[in-house]
Amino acid sequence: MNGKFIVVEGLEGAGKSSVIGLIKAYIEKAGIGVEQTREPGGTPMAEAIRECVKHDWEETVAQETELLLMYAARVQLLKNKILPALEKGIWVVGDRHDLSSQAYQGGGRQMNANTMKEISAIALNGFKPDLTIYLDVEPAVGLQRARGRGELDRIEQAGLAFFERTRARYLALASQDDSIVVVNAMNEMAIVHDDVCNVLKEYLS
Amino acid sequence: MNGKFIVVEGLEGAGKSSVIGLIKAYIEKAGIGVEQTREPGGTPMAEAIRECVKHDWEETVAQETELLLMYAARVQLLKNKILPALEKGIWVVGDRHDLSSQAYQGGGRQMNANTMKEISAIALNGFKPDLTIYLDVEPAVGLQRARGRGELDRIEQAGLAFFERTRARYLALASQDDSIVVVNAMNEMAIVHDDVCNVLKEYLS
Repeated sequence: MNGKFIVVEGLEGAGKSSVIGLIKAYIEKAGIGVEQTREPGGTPMAEAIRECVKHDWEETVAQETELLLMYAARVQLLKNKILPALEKGIWVVGDRHDLSSQAYQGGGRQMNANTMKEISAIALNGFKPDLTIYLDVEPAVGLQRARGRGELDRIEQAGLAFFERTRARYLALASQDDSIVVVNAMNEMAIVHDDVCNVLKEYLS
Repeated sequence: MNGKFIVVEGLEGAGKSSVIGLIKAYIEKAGIGVEQTREPGGTPMAEAIRECVKHDWEETVAQETELLLMYAARVQLLKNKILPALEKGIWVVGDRHDLSSQAYQGGGRQMNANTMKEISAIALNGFKPDLTIYLDVEPAVGLQRARGRGELDRIEQAGLAFFERTRARYLALASQDDSIVVVNAMNEMAIVHDDVCNVLKEYLS
């Protein structure tokens, strides 16, 4: 496994997209091949699963259904795109990965901690990113930015308390794992980008 | 919970559909309300998940992806259709349920036994059918019948050895669980129907 898997995480409106662009450019500049993924999604089948999750169903979507679909899409992406790229020495920059489920379903939706651990183990069999950059933003700030982009989807409509719990879980998990670096994403974009570049510089050295 | 959940299981071509019709008629004749479900599927969202599973994707479908999708559809059906019906005293006749995953993914695809147990516990939280009728048929016989009906889907194309393992797992699980009754489905349909009626008579008495 020569390539590295770098994941960008954060609430809606944290600025993931622009940071992902920055990271890709940084890696390319170092002469390394790089691919981008997003979760849920990233292969034709995983994108179809994403549609299922994001669709505004008239029926209630059970928490367990959402969780199982997220991990179904994640396995599919891992096996068909992330692992094959890493094996070829290509680096992969991921827009969300397992930490999103841990934070949103585990923190936001308050799903059972053991359930979260077991399903992750079943789906990923111990695989984890080499580096995760968590863009930390207050939910009110992030949602304000996200609303500026257009409509929010079903998960994004879950309310402020949900996002407060999600953020708290992100921060708690980051504090327990050296491979997760927190970047303050409430700063101006130029500062955020500088901070991300410093994280990458340190990681690559 | 006043209603009962009766599941019909078996390999392709075992004759599930005609037996399900028979069971529904039997229950209705007893003056009890009855609904039919199928898995994967049975709600709009679960049917969309079914489409995902059954679609002939160009990419490889990971075993874990298939398993997680099956259970995602199962939870959705359980919470939105089976449980509400049972609570109203309506009986539900299911075309497949958890035992299918145990037999096909656990037996046929030889997935890890612990994985199978954990995912079932996560999704179903201990729920199980009141009665399961397993229609036992030799794979070669069942597939011959299924081919007569038209094309086989991705899962059905998995080959005879796969179905031999699936059948063996069905029979092994039935031998360990009194709520699963094996009916010889290689007999003529009239005899199979008689046998199923006898199972129902005994169950209802």
